Amino acid sequence: MTSTATIPPELLELRESIDNIDAALIHIIAERFKCTRRVGQLKAKLDLPAGDSAREEQQIARLRSLANSARLDPVFAEKLFKFIVDEVIRNHISIKESE
Amino acid sequence: MTSTATIPPELLELRESIDNIDAALIHIIAERFKCTRRVGQLKAKLDLPAGDSAREEQQIARLRSLANSARLDPVFAEKLFKFIVDEVIRNHISIKESE
Repeated sequence: MTSTATIPPELLELRESIDNIDAALIHIIAERFKCTRRVGQLKAKLDLPAGDSAREEQQIARLRSLANSARLDPVFAEKLFKFIVDEVIRNHISIKESE
Repeated sequence: MTSTATIPPELLELRESIDNIDAALIHIIAERFKCTRRVGQLKAKLDLPAGDSAREEQQIARLRSLANSARLDPVFAEKLFKFIVDEVIRNHISIKESE
């Protein structure tokens, strides 16, 4: 364990930036789940399937391209997207089952 | 597969919002990795360990609290954080090995 007293100032400063970024991330992801919750309700109402592989392929291609432009590893961007979409699909299924 | 012509307008509109949110996410995460790359270089230079369990515990507690305020499932927020940190630690180790 590293006590605060021994942390180099440059590391402390970077950690402050990371904490700010993480707060932004949490709020953006919360908003994304608000959107996908509405998608789930709509899909349940219209009896549409929880997943849409054509849409997901388009999203992955676009996100990989955005990641490249932002110098983020596109392989990681795709893995992260799939991690989030897995949760979204679980939620869609549970919305449908609860109706 | 759903063709664009058959997608209900409300779903199309939600998807546009999700696409905007995802572009924001990619750029924020790219910036986070820029920060953690500098952390990795600093840790390698100062011979500090790649992970810091005390720091991670603080981060998780804070992110769970932020997730609660933003009505995001805190369990998912923690899983997502660990998913990102695993990648960060892999990067830290590879920076250290390449030095």
